[in-house]
Amino acid sequence: MSLQVSSRNSSLQESPIRKLAPFADEAKKEGVKVYHLNIGQPDIKTPSGMRKAYQNIPEVVAYGPSAGLYSYRTKLAEYYRTRGIPVTADNVFITTGGSEAIIFSLMAALSPGDEVIIPEPFYTNYNGFAVMAGVNVVPVTTKIEDGFQLPPMEEFEKVRTDKTRAILFSNPGNPTGAVFSRERLDGLIAFAKKHDLYIFSDEAYREFTYGERKAHSILEFDGIEEHAVLIDSVSKRYSACGARVGTLITRNKKLLEVVLKLGQARLCPPTIDQMAAEAAVDTPASYFDEVNSEYRKRRDFAFDAVSAIPGVLVKKPEGAFYMIIQLPIADADHFARWMLTDFRFGGATTMVAPAAGFYATEGLGKNQVRLAYVLAVEDLKPAIKILEEGLKKYQELFA
Amino acid sequence: MSLQVSSRNSSLQESPIRKLAPFADEAKKEGVKVYHLNIGQPDIKTPSGMRKAYQNIPEVVAYGPSAGLYSYRTKLAEYYRTRGIPVTADNVFITTGGSEAIIFSLMAALSPGDEVIIPEPFYTNYNGFAVMAGVNVVPVTTKIEDGFQLPPMEEFEKVRTDKTRAILFSNPGNPTGAVFSRERLDGLIAFAKKHDLYIFSDEAYREFTYGERKAHSILEFDGIEEHAVLIDSVSKRYSACGARVGTLITRNKKLLEVVLKLGQARLCPPTIDQMAAEAAVDTPASYFDEVNSEYRKRRDFAFDAVSAIPGVLVKKPEGAFYMIIQLPIADADHFARWMLTDFRFGGATTMVAPAAGFYATEGLGKNQVRLAYVLAVEDLKPAIKILEEGLKKYQELFA
Repeated sequence: MSLQVSSRNSSLQESPIRKLAPFADEAKKEGVKVYHLNIGQPDIKTPSGMRKAYQNIPEVVAYGPSAGLYSYRTKLAEYYRTRGIPVTADNVFITTGGSEAIIFSLMAALSPGDEVIIPEPFYTNYNGFAVMAGVNVVPVTTKIEDGFQLPPMEEFEKVRTDKTRAILFSNPGNPTGAVFSRERLDGLIAFAKKHDLYIFSDEAYREFTYGERKAHSILEFDGIEEHAVLIDSVSKRYSACGARVGTLITRNKKLLEVVLKLGQARLCPPTIDQMAAEAAVDTPASYFDEVNSEYRKRRDFAFDAVSAIPGVLVKKPEGAFYMIIQLPIADADHFARWMLTDFRFGGATTMVAPAAGFYATEGLGKNQVRLAYVLAVEDLKPAIKILEEGLKKYQELFA
Repeated sequence: MSLQVSSRNSSLQESPIRKLAPFADEAKKEGVKVYHLNIGQPDIKTPSGMRKAYQNIPEVVAYGPSAGLYSYRTKLAEYYRTRGIPVTADNVFITTGGSEAIIFSLMAALSPGDEVIIPEPFYTNYNGFAVMAGVNVVPVTTKIEDGFQLPPMEEFEKVRTDKTRAILFSNPGNPTGAVFSRERLDGLIAFAKKHDLYIFSDEAYREFTYGERKAHSILEFDGIEEHAVLIDSVSKRYSACGARVGTLITRNKKLLEVVLKLGQARLCPPTIDQMAAEAAVDTPASYFDEVNSEYRKRRDFAFDAVSAIPGVLVKKPEGAFYMIIQLPIADADHFARWMLTDFRFGGATTMVAPAAGFYATEGLGKNQVRLAYVLAVEDLKPAIKILEEGLKKYQELFA
């Protein structure tokens, strides 16, 4: 007989980004070239300064403080100050990736059974974090027609209950590429103040905007010292996803005390990676200019190419490196799998992430997929061509 | 006004290992030399092969698979096979430190509100992990007079309820230094089989035993495929606490599936540290021989020195690098703090971890402290001398 597993299991989904990976592996074994538009793993080089810092290994790879290396916290506070966010090292808590920053935020602020409102579609791992923290996700739907812009305050009022304790979102948005407007953020803040809610602002893509609109940090706003928690990560900024170094920044001292206790339990974030992340703060502006212009190029190419596919609905994303596209089919999950198992074009295929997994509301997003434009234009070109050809073939077969 | 924090906060303790750190920092600022016997941060050098592996930084520090780098899982399985533990890469899941392996074990196997039995005194962070997983710790008390040996099965029967789902322990033991006997482990396994319980065996100190008795791995035992989960870490074995690489190993496929879903949410363990950990598996046996003989020397010295202090009760530890000692005072917490704030001997003082925090039963361990013999004998000598002198002075002052 088999021992029971946790009741949590039924709430844990497989990642829509990773669940089709076995099919991709199979295809690769057959010699098929797979273009990965499914995962936000950039091909951009990690800055050389950061990579060099990994070479300075002390004789003992020792524990660091639970809140992170003080020198790194200090340096990171400086980075935010240069971006108009007045914080000190005391406000900065280093985590093991942005993931842990979100888990700790939920665990420290919410009690089991409490609710967190999240605009959907959202970064699917928020589900897993909510399950870990024993809290419930309440979605507010954003629309592809509006470019997934933050809904007005009234929409949040509709879903609020007396168990609501927080709002969580990413801005710029994963998986939407949306950058939230100042006006809508003002509305959200008024809502949070009115009902004593935390705002967890995941700003992992803060440096990646391509339009007129820059992303506003939640810590730029006045009068919400107790409410605002900024979540960030080195993963995307320095193309160092494998470093697993993130941060949780807040002026709410009581919350930070609870976070510290959680942090003490897991001892510390990885030491050498923090040393590298500290060096990364000195990455010259030219690196970001280059990277952003590269991503803008990719965004523009991908958007134009996808827009040209018959029957596809897409709005131009303003930030991050994702776009959600709506396809003229019923079951994007089936389509994405079929692309890996059955469709080949010039010996290659394209992997995308079915978007239903990014929605909490059952039934939404079934005809949408997320594309991560993390490949060079020369690879995006065949990747999207294959997507177009696959879609045509799929419609013939399953019409 | 201040927003509420999670109800979890009241169950989260400050780490007994770290909570006195601010007092130690104060003392250091005054120029006082502080001998750290409070924390298991070894001074042993990380093996050069592991340190060198940190230098091979790829151009992109990318995400790895959620279950860990396959090459590392394969290599690690080999390590266990050479130790008589027949596992394959498929049984091995890489975690961010042993901490995450325990958190995932609890979250994957237990539902919120379930109970885990833990022999006390136990590694204090188990409390934090239980709070994170929303499960309740039920202690079974082990005794200093018995060298903290695992109690017989009957003691476990006494505390079992219909909410009990698992047993968790470290073997060799932190904070006790106990190595569990084959006979008592057999009893525990019979108990687990009888009641369908998981056994989470934290073997972070598996290589550190100094007597006739070797530590038995839970995966050496037959007929408990569904029950047994081995938890391990590179932290102590390779003196690489800051690497944050651990592992969870089990033959229970259903459990591993749930663990994988939890793992996907947090993406992956740190990539470069895993590459270094993989290289560490090739550390020559001579390294361990040297390290173990060094620790045996320290253990022998510390045990003899502490035994000679009037009024102190201590049993010779058989493994790990800790010992719990019972002092002829009422409040070890106060004593430990006083050592940092008030007591100086030749311009130095000694920091120890008050043991009450290692017990779940209120009132136990108040006259005990944990010593980590992670310093060279030449440092242990003054450290324990200072402890002895401090104790004498403290008894005069607070008799």
